[in-house]
Amino acid sequence: MRSLLLVTAAALVIGAAPAKKLPTPSDIVAAAPASAWKTIPADDLMVMDLANGGRIVIQLAPAFAPVHVANVKALARGNYWDGATVYRLQDNYVAQWGLNESDRPWPKGVVPKPPAEYTRPLKGLTVKPLGYPDPYAPGTGFSEGWPIAYSAKANWANLAHCYASVGVGRDLAPDTGTGGELYAVIGNAPRQLDRVIALIGRVVDGIDHLSSLPRGTEALGFYKEKAQYVPIASIRLASDMPASDRPSYEYLDTQSPSFAQYVKVRANRHDDFYTRPAGGVDLCNVQVPVRKKS
Amino acid sequence: MRSLLLVTAAALVIGAAPAKKLPTPSDIVAAAPASAWKTIPADDLMVMDLANGGRIVIQLAPAFAPVHVANVKALARGNYWDGATVYRLQDNYVAQWGLNESDRPWPKGVVPKPPAEYTRPLKGLTVKPLGYPDPYAPGTGFSEGWPIAYSAKANWANLAHCYASVGVGRDLAPDTGTGGELYAVIGNAPRQLDRVIALIGRVVDGIDHLSSLPRGTEALGFYKEKAQYVPIASIRLASDMPASDRPSYEYLDTQSPSFAQYVKVRANRHDDFYTRPAGGVDLCNVQVPVRKKS
Repeated sequence: MRSLLLVTAAALVIGAAPAKKLPTPSDIVAAAPASAWKTIPADDLMVMDLANGGRIVIQLAPAFAPVHVANVKALARGNYWDGATVYRLQDNYVAQWGLNESDRPWPKGVVPKPPAEYTRPLKGLTVKPLGYPDPYAPGTGFSEGWPIAYSAKANWANLAHCYASVGVGRDLAPDTGTGGELYAVIGNAPRQLDRVIALIGRVVDGIDHLSSLPRGTEALGFYKEKAQYVPIASIRLASDMPASDRPSYEYLDTQSPSFAQYVKVRANRHDDFYTRPAGGVDLCNVQVPVRKKS
Repeated sequence: MRSLLLVTAAALVIGAAPAKKLPTPSDIVAAAPASAWKTIPADDLMVMDLANGGRIVIQLAPAFAPVHVANVKALARGNYWDGATVYRLQDNYVAQWGLNESDRPWPKGVVPKPPAEYTRPLKGLTVKPLGYPDPYAPGTGFSEGWPIAYSAKANWANLAHCYASVGVGRDLAPDTGTGGELYAVIGNAPRQLDRVIALIGRVVDGIDHLSSLPRGTEALGFYKEKAQYVPIASIRLASDMPASDRPSYEYLDTQSPSFAQYVKVRANRHDDFYTRPAGGVDLCNVQVPVRKKS
């Protein structure tokens, strides 16, 4: 019965397209030429290894929060998080981990009070507009592989809080967060956090090692018992790892024709399963393709 | 160090409002009068008990997919899912469980080929419009506690695919899904599924028993090994349970002044943490308040 169930279930699966006639988003990604892919610099990749063996890879976004990102790099270089823990899991919201100054002094190079890097000027960014309405900002689109919200009129842009976005925990203003405590989004895009907190990047691999952790039962999803804390073995920049162990990733260039086609199909699914294309797509449902380089 | 960390972390938490000046969404929910709450009928509550003790409570939506909901009720009354499993966990997408006809014959009363109840007429629904733009539909709002998308011009409405929405797995059209295999959304709202698949309700309690399960490693998140399947002890309608064990829930009336205030504050967070209100909110980030009755 079980094997039959799996076979049948595979056919019944939502979102599957067993008989391809028109391209799916995956088809377009698979067909994109090598020239449409951009390698993420090893200096912008941060590798978080849990003590249980799970590996989470984070791409950093220095163009959006330069001081916060520099802090996070200094923390990684100082082996600051060795032995730290994941201590908060709030369902449909965030996983949070790290340490702060009261646990361990900041390593060399950390700026304790960074500026509020919640937005940056739109000018200077190359933007591919999404072209569909958004409840949170006048414009949305993509820049250098990142989902962004922006105002052309007021000249601001911000990384958007999407699934797997990584940000810096902070106290009430004027605190802006130093970088020792980080969170990753594991639920519906909490776009209300856009422009009020610093995002420093996104998880590009292994988010399931965070999203499948047990939820904390205390207020705001904190774990109640010490025994529930999930130990972190280390967090390192890929550029500081031995070449043999250093992972490498690439993203689909958001200015490429392949990406334009990908967005179009995301907004107008017409493969077999989709009896009626939506005619639009939410910024965070576009999910810029990122893949491991072999 | 650990206890200090927790104290400090609690203060650093994102979204917290330690010194309340202006109301948070939670404040408004807590202050809502008894008259603003509506009890979910016991006949529209379905209780899914996992063999591991986890309880997931689902509110059914007969006004949106009457035949599919009637099927699901007939399946629950026929003890159809006793011993079934959760067999698919796709990260940032869905958890899926159940059986189909090849595993066990349909109980009495099940309609094998229901109509495609993916939309219904807008007419006949009492709607509280949200009033912010949406990439998927001309209008969005709330009806009888449900988040909906609609077109006033074309006279259709559908339940929106939000976090915790529950739908019916189906094969390619003309199949519409009978109801034996169900899924719950555990990631960013997959609104592209609106109007192409039947939603029958939402998880109102215990979604974490699904969202924190290990992700499946096969294509589309299916579990590879039998040993990974998560056994279901039973799925019952609350109205069929002994009164002593029967849970009861209520939702905030989406036509109430409390709900209007709640939406306004969700779109314009001005409590201490939010240095800049968004000025808008996504349909699926409003999250209609539902609570257990004592």
